Amino acid sequence: MYKSLLFAPIFFIVSQSSIAQKNDSTVVREIFDAALTKGEAYEDLRSLCKDVGARLSGSAEAQLAVEWSEKKFKEYGFENVFLQPVMVPHWERGTKEVAWFKTKQGDIVPLHILALGGSIGTEGLMRAEVVPFNSLEELKKADKASLIGKIAFINQAMNPADIVTFKAYGGCYAIRGEGAIEASKLGAIAVVIRSLALPQDDFPHTGSMHYEEQTPKIPAGALSTNSCNLLAEALTHGKVELILEMDCRSYPDIQSYNVIGEIVGSEKPNEIITIGGHLDSWDTGEGAHDDGAGVIHSMEALRLMKSLKIRPKHTIRVVFFMNEENGNKGGLGYAEWVKSKGEKHIAAVESDRGGFSPRGFDCDGTTEQLKMIQAYRELLLPYGLYHFEKGYGGVDIGPLKKQFEGIPLFGFVPDSQRYFDFHHAPSDVFENVNKRELELGAGSLAAFVYLLDRSL
Amino acid sequence: MYKSLLFAPIFFIVSQSSIAQKNDSTVVREIFDAALTKGEAYEDLRSLCKDVGARLSGSAEAQLAVEWSEKKFKEYGFENVFLQPVMVPHWERGTKEVAWFKTKQGDIVPLHILALGGSIGTEGLMRAEVVPFNSLEELKKADKASLIGKIAFINQAMNPADIVTFKAYGGCYAIRGEGAIEASKLGAIAVVIRSLALPQDDFPHTGSMHYEEQTPKIPAGALSTNSCNLLAEALTHGKVELILEMDCRSYPDIQSYNVIGEIVGSEKPNEIITIGGHLDSWDTGEGAHDDGAGVIHSMEALRLMKSLKIRPKHTIRVVFFMNEENGNKGGLGYAEWVKSKGEKHIAAVESDRGGFSPRGFDCDGTTEQLKMIQAYRELLLPYGLYHFEKGYGGVDIGPLKKQFEGIPLFGFVPDSQRYFDFHHAPSDVFENVNKRELELGAGSLAAFVYLLDRSL
Repeated sequence: MYKSLLFAPIFFIVSQSSIAQKNDSTVVREIFDAALTKGEAYEDLRSLCKDVGARLSGSAEAQLAVEWSEKKFKEYGFENVFLQPVMVPHWERGTKEVAWFKTKQGDIVPLHILALGGSIGTEGLMRAEVVPFNSLEELKKADKASLIGKIAFINQAMNPADIVTFKAYGGCYAIRGEGAIEASKLGAIAVVIRSLALPQDDFPHTGSMHYEEQTPKIPAGALSTNSCNLLAEALTHGKVELILEMDCRSYPDIQSYNVIGEIVGSEKPNEIITIGGHLDSWDTGEGAHDDGAGVIHSMEALRLMKSLKIRPKHTIRVVFFMNEENGNKGGLGYAEWVKSKGEKHIAAVESDRGGFSPRGFDCDGTTEQLKMIQAYRELLLPYGLYHFEKGYGGVDIGPLKKQFEGIPLFGFVPDSQRYFDFHHAPSDVFENVNKRELELGAGSLAAFVYLLDRSL
Repeated sequence: MYKSLLFAPIFFIVSQSSIAQKNDSTVVREIFDAALTKGEAYEDLRSLCKDVGARLSGSAEAQLAVEWSEKKFKEYGFENVFLQPVMVPHWERGTKEVAWFKTKQGDIVPLHILALGGSIGTEGLMRAEVVPFNSLEELKKADKASLIGKIAFINQAMNPADIVTFKAYGGCYAIRGEGAIEASKLGAIAVVIRSLALPQDDFPHTGSMHYEEQTPKIPAGALSTNSCNLLAEALTHGKVELILEMDCRSYPDIQSYNVIGEIVGSEKPNEIITIGGHLDSWDTGEGAHDDGAGVIHSMEALRLMKSLKIRPKHTIRVVFFMNEENGNKGGLGYAEWVKSKGEKHIAAVESDRGGFSPRGFDCDGTTEQLKMIQAYRELLLPYGLYHFEKGYGGVDIGPLKKQFEGIPLFGFVPDSQRYFDFHHAPSDVFENVNKRELELGAGSLAAFVYLLDRSL
């Protein structure tokens, strides 16, 4: 009798725990089954890419994307569908965007170029000697006089030996962001950079760049990797003249919106888990991987939970953030707005690394919070998710950290090998997203959020 | 002093082990660095796909592929380069391969079809009513009379809910292999099957099929998934006539070769680790993933080891097997031949699941042998390899198991999501292989073989 009394509670605990485990395992299986056999992700991404297209902040297409998303949220029966106003930058690429180089021998070679987002135009045809640098560091060390009246060419390549390609991207990021400032400080009249891309091909990759008040603004463009190789080769034979025309320009900030929808929590409706990606994209291609996949992952995760009648304890809120690419006004505005409303935010999950085969989740949080999600590993391993490590949440959800002390942020981690083939390039189109990979990503997000809701 | 004596050996062991670990980690890093920054895999695959092309056993292209491979092995300085003769089947697709269906209303709809490998032709235009089945099991249960003079249509789809797509393939494999036999038994004059493919598109996927002596041979073809959907839809409205012409046929067996090269072991040159894939491919597309990637992985693994001056203890032998697709005469012939020569084989590794991002290795061996490779997990995890489980080695190396008791076989496991988009289809071309994913596969194979050689 004594023994029985002693062991009964232990048996009860084990038994309960094993039932819960079995239930979680069954629910996760149902989520992936639904994502792969009755998923809407692929057709929704097709519609976002083909019916709306590229959707740079401030563009008509970005506004259409907001309306497209609001309609979808309502069709899928999300609760409290809402457009949260944010003011965003408005920059337009214009109609002219061309470059050639001319060698000492008089050969003229066309180059593949895209203006960097935010760049000023060239005000007509610009012709100047081009000065090459292998890195931003090398440029910074150049003599001031050496760039006066010239065009700087920063030919810094992403390191192909980095296994996680985002690391290689991080290693080059500054040439795009700071290249115009540093070149201008030395007197350059324009800067062209090597696209932040791993393949050797003809696609230039755009992206945001910055100016600073005290330094004259100069035009900035990205050349395709093939174009950079051609130009670099020509430069080994002598002086080269670069001929450049871009008529991009900035306009006053414009009204736009984050798009919001929810499943209201059954037990703690006032405690919110945000999941999302960014609705805006660069203006080339279709923003299919960046970040069409991420917003579709997030919307599909909520839709899957609804379709499987999973009622979370906490409120799960999907947010399609506006303007991640060139200002993060959506992410910043959201965090400030929810704080000002007195909301309680307990976690956030972002998908902004493309629609590739899932590998796991990064945790920007405490060791305890990491351990919490590492406990999901066994349940998610059958679906190819093994990576649960400290890492980065995402740009859009990042500002929540400042507003909510101790909030854990999680970033969805798909395979990164192909991301920089498409990132910010005309090749970031629907056709380059694989249906199963996209669906597995949506399933992963839904399963992760389901488990997170149960853990918190 | 006593304490010192007691602890000294333990310290020594730990220290040695930690040095060895560090060395392995450094070597693995060097292997992946070389694969990603100085790799030849991508250009070699381009040459195999574009200069040689599809290479079905018995074809002129297969012979060219043998010569291409032999030249490569010699150029890369492999030792004991050798062509091992094997007799292989010789089947040709011919020049006609067309299908339409005609509805009761007289509408004529063209279909995308490929003859299955080994099929007889239709001997001119064949027209007959088509009888649909949702599975091979359903066909087997049909009344014998119901198929006399008719064409069977086995519209069995791969299960999209299987996370590892090879499982879904295994679930449908029999419709291709046995469909003609089972349909013929019931009196059918031909069989068409749903392509073993996951996407909904216009690419038919070919593959091997079988006849048996006591059952009349009937023509067999595979329709694209889109074509199957069209045909199935038409059949819901009434009787449908299928119109079919294929002039494929078999010829007498022909002489071909496995292509062999080695790095001879420094300590145990008579103990052999075989690594390889199959050089033959189906005759559509370019055999880029199946199994161009696998042979290139294997060759690049040896080349990487040589270029990094890694001298293995045991002999590492690369084998480009002939005729995996429709007979496995290369795999069977190799195992018999090396046994007859009295060679000692201690392990074999195969890559035949495409050139996608690495996930790990399967082990067809004992629990001890599995534990041996699970010890590599920590070293290979930084490169995305986490899966080290019991599983399948491969078709080519399979026959070694019969000849060498207890030999462990290992199968390289890349991500499987996109494999059945391309497998045996006209879309299996070089352009659908990603450079980094291919290079990471080659690095994985080289690192795995390096570690295996040290463990054995």
